[in-house]
Amino acid sequence: MKNALVLLSGGMDSATVLALARAEGFACHCLSVRYGQRHSAELAAAAELAHSLGAADHRVVDLNLGLFGGSALTDDSIQVPDQRSEGIPVTYVPARNTVFLAVALAWAEVLQARDLFIGVNAVDYSGYPDCRPEFIQAFETLANLATKAGVEGDRIRIRTPLIHLTKAEIIRRGIGAGVDFSRTVSCYSADSQGRACGTCDACHLRAKGFADAGIADVTRYQP
Amino acid sequence: MKNALVLLSGGMDSATVLALARAEGFACHCLSVRYGQRHSAELAAAAELAHSLGAADHRVVDLNLGLFGGSALTDDSIQVPDQRSEGIPVTYVPARNTVFLAVALAWAEVLQARDLFIGVNAVDYSGYPDCRPEFIQAFETLANLATKAGVEGDRIRIRTPLIHLTKAEIIRRGIGAGVDFSRTVSCYSADSQGRACGTCDACHLRAKGFADAGIADVTRYQP
Repeated sequence: MKNALVLLSGGMDSATVLALARAEGFACHCLSVRYGQRHSAELAAAAELAHSLGAADHRVVDLNLGLFGGSALTDDSIQVPDQRSEGIPVTYVPARNTVFLAVALAWAEVLQARDLFIGVNAVDYSGYPDCRPEFIQAFETLANLATKAGVEGDRIRIRTPLIHLTKAEIIRRGIGAGVDFSRTVSCYSADSQGRACGTCDACHLRAKGFADAGIADVTRYQP
Repeated sequence: MKNALVLLSGGMDSATVLALARAEGFACHCLSVRYGQRHSAELAAAAELAHSLGAADHRVVDLNLGLFGGSALTDDSIQVPDQRSEGIPVTYVPARNTVFLAVALAWAEVLQARDLFIGVNAVDYSGYPDCRPEFIQAFETLANLATKAGVEGDRIRIRTPLIHLTKAEIIRRGIGAGVDFSRTVSCYSADSQGRACGTCDACHLRAKGFADAGIADVTRYQP
């Protein structure tokens, strides 16, 4: 089995990506980052998903982006808004996907993995610049210049199987690949048990996804 | 004063970069990474250099790349070699500069800094793929796609004032800009006081730099 690196947040998108990578036959090495996120319940969800979806390995790296502030997700003094704002929202974490992919690339090099999976999505997404196809393309170019593998001509690929799917399509694919979405955490304000607030932008996107897919919403909500 | 982000390892190159960025008039926010390096004395040197060279701020981020292994610098089971090997050496830390620049970019976004300084060098260097001009160019492209600043048309620049200089030229520039090289740590096997082994590749490059520049080597060596 070939090794793949899978960025696993514990949310529905990355869980689906893991299931799809497994279905392709990869030995999946999953990476989560404890970056100072207020919704750290997603890390417990990630560990559970890695196990239930048959990952080869799951590691959590500490990297406190909260040290720099600047995002509602890492700075308690900035409130998570209920509604989508114009432009890039305050839940944007500066350079988060760049950092995640960079750390994933470091591990991928050691594993000699050539496929890095990330669950970014450019359809039903939150307006973050680092979810766009042109960002992913630029990172792939970088990865092949940055590494021993790239220099030696063994191409690294950034795999984004969800990038052009709607949330409803992601949910259908995920269910087809065996994901139990009741165990995924999307909410920015999830409680310690991973239960969702039902009001933040991530909750809205998720609930709309279930509705559009015509599938009962299995999300566990806070009482 | 405009903010700049400076990656500061505590070595001679990044110390020179900090001094040059200060000379350009930037308020320099310095970032060091505790990545599991065996030569962690460089972090103490970084703190001292940030202070003596008038940085606005210095932060050390923990990110344990040793968790993945694969490098003599982070894995005690791999020995630091005395001589340069063919190709990419075992002291190469997988994707290190990609990770460092990614974390620097995260902080730069919060600071609204548009200039990120890194002391990479493609002349007297160790053969690492992530020191090459094409790598830096690819990261700059990525940075402008990854961030709010880039999306809003405010160009981010990766500044590499040393990239085409020899080690001897770096030493001359550094001295001219006020760097006390006796306080910098280059050695891969530096002791806890920052004293150099004198035999590793980093020590060889450094000693040759002083010799080529015709300047007395101020390095503090282990007894």
